[in-house]
Amino acid sequence: MQAAAANMASAARRLAKGSSQLRVPLRWRGQAAAAQSRTPQPQPQARKPKTGILMLNMGGPERLDDVHDFLLRLFLDRDLMTLPAQNPTQVLHRVPLRAPPDGGGGGGDGAGWHRAGGGLHPVPPVQLLHHGSLNAIYRYYSARGQQPRMKWSIIDRWPTHPLLIQCFSDHIEKELQLFPADKRQDVVILFSAHSLPMSVVNRGDPYPQEVGATVQRVMEKLNYSNPYRLVWQSKVGPMPWLGPPTDETIRGLCQQGHRNLLLVPIAFTSDHIETLYELDIEYAQVLARQCGVENIRRAESLNGNPLFSKALADLVCSHLQSNEVCSRQLPLCCPLCANPVCRETKAFFTGQQL
Amino acid sequence: MQAAAANMASAARRLAKGSSQLRVPLRWRGQAAAAQSRTPQPQPQARKPKTGILMLNMGGPERLDDVHDFLLRLFLDRDLMTLPAQNPTQVLHRVPLRAPPDGGGGGGDGAGWHRAGGGLHPVPPVQLLHHGSLNAIYRYYSARGQQPRMKWSIIDRWPTHPLLIQCFSDHIEKELQLFPADKRQDVVILFSAHSLPMSVVNRGDPYPQEVGATVQRVMEKLNYSNPYRLVWQSKVGPMPWLGPPTDETIRGLCQQGHRNLLLVPIAFTSDHIETLYELDIEYAQVLARQCGVENIRRAESLNGNPLFSKALADLVCSHLQSNEVCSRQLPLCCPLCANPVCRETKAFFTGQQL
Repeated sequence: MQAAAANMASAARRLAKGSSQLRVPLRWRGQAAAAQSRTPQPQPQARKPKTGILMLNMGGPERLDDVHDFLLRLFLDRDLMTLPAQNPTQVLHRVPLRAPPDGGGGGGDGAGWHRAGGGLHPVPPVQLLHHGSLNAIYRYYSARGQQPRMKWSIIDRWPTHPLLIQCFSDHIEKELQLFPADKRQDVVILFSAHSLPMSVVNRGDPYPQEVGATVQRVMEKLNYSNPYRLVWQSKVGPMPWLGPPTDETIRGLCQQGHRNLLLVPIAFTSDHIETLYELDIEYAQVLARQCGVENIRRAESLNGNPLFSKALADLVCSHLQSNEVCSRQLPLCCPLCANPVCRETKAFFTGQQL
Repeated sequence: MQAAAANMASAARRLAKGSSQLRVPLRWRGQAAAAQSRTPQPQPQARKPKTGILMLNMGGPERLDDVHDFLLRLFLDRDLMTLPAQNPTQVLHRVPLRAPPDGGGGGGDGAGWHRAGGGLHPVPPVQLLHHGSLNAIYRYYSARGQQPRMKWSIIDRWPTHPLLIQCFSDHIEKELQLFPADKRQDVVILFSAHSLPMSVVNRGDPYPQEVGATVQRVMEKLNYSNPYRLVWQSKVGPMPWLGPPTDETIRGLCQQGHRNLLLVPIAFTSDHIETLYELDIEYAQVLARQCGVENIRRAESLNGNPLFSKALADLVCSHLQSNEVCSRQLPLCCPLCANPVCRETKAFFTGQQL
């Protein structure tokens, strides 16, 4: 289960050694990559500053018993989401909504990928991941009233990295081959991404635009071999979220006679509850049976694919070569940002001197 | 005003002549490109079938006096939109909402681009353009109970064509140069596309995904030189539409201190009411003044840019070489399609034998 992180680190080391262009030590990590290096010593011959890679993701419960507390913390985190009512008593009523009734996906095979850093999102929803993780780092220093002794830099987005696209298209091609030959070209590819509340979309989170770009690039790589749609899963609560919803899309396509479907978890990289339970069980088993699907398959998650590790390693190298703290996109808050901490966090990170 | 169409046709002819790969006569047109060729004669030495190019767009009023009737027809067209109440009496109340009070943009300089075919959308909203235009062609034959004697084929989407991307990025770079040098790298680029009602988004129109892909490719071409957002304009009526809205975004960014803005009409190609009136007057003049903008500019529309004509010509050539009726995407209705004619229309077009 540690394979992805280990592969990535070793690939990064190889790439870094092989490049004469590197002018700064290796410092970053995948999703919201933060660099860690000691303050350089005054002596010119002193040891090179060390570099740490911090890979951030949403985490996940490992056992069924963990699900309740995990979801409770998730729903109470105002950096991740703001609900109309958000105190423990009220949230407790909501939690069971997404706890799998039979334990599938909540723990089990997929959980380890979170520990391995496989839960990285190539295009993280600003509100859900950036803000949660980066605000936490900012708050850590802010609460102590101190500046960090290490220097932080961030790899904040990589929605169309060529190796990422290659991984997705490899997994899709592999899965398409498993459909009956006479159905293969009629298969509708459904790229399923985690949805966002419309309130987040409408305040200007760039996530839907970037996921759209990933989808287009994957289809280009596949030479537009099949019809496809970008659809959105994992809505919770009564407020409007971005659609079309994955489940309604499956239902609608079946009604139209499109009964060969390939689900592709996109803007996810590893297996977790959204793939193992929601896609594999709720949709590909239960719903598919109700709708009279002929063939439905789910493309493998990137998990420990060595090419994915190579993509991450390449991101490290490019980031180091750029010698930039973050993308030009990161410092811009959502135009209608509702979280005052975001601005402070962004100022904290963009103020880092590499 | 006819320059764009003339340039395109002549560029297409040049490209077609220069290519030894062409196996089929030139037949298509830009937005929803329908091919027109006579039934081949039985004699092998007979003249080559003729090819016509039909370029479709939404049209537009040319004079202020035309605005009312144009909008009335627009709002009554159930292929374009379905409103809660849609008879002439009720629609008349809505029309003045978007009629420009001073005539700006309604007629004037931009109107000619519609006639020139400049109103093409590289990523047409299925509901707004495809269905409207293609359903009309289908209905023409269906009403007469006859099969067409010509053969139709369709160029239905080209959101990331390299020359299209080049045009957009050229126009952006040109405009960025006109900002004060010390502000240039802080300019926020706002890609403004025509919004859609959420009911259309949620039924699975691929337009938002494709516009997202266009934006990403343009920013890649610009080497991600500036922060940017994809924003959505031209909402009408009280129902929810996809956001963030262009005007609220401008307001929000100014409040955050981002007072240097570049508006880029994206998924539009020519000037019309949405650029000349909405972007240039409503936003870049009136709203910008209210918000205390420092510098706001609007990237030129593609209009008669020869490179854009070349892009269209290249699309023709590739389409002809492919010998395909349409993309694999076109035959797939929106998964939650609400218009029964769409399916018949798609069957009509995909049934064409080239």
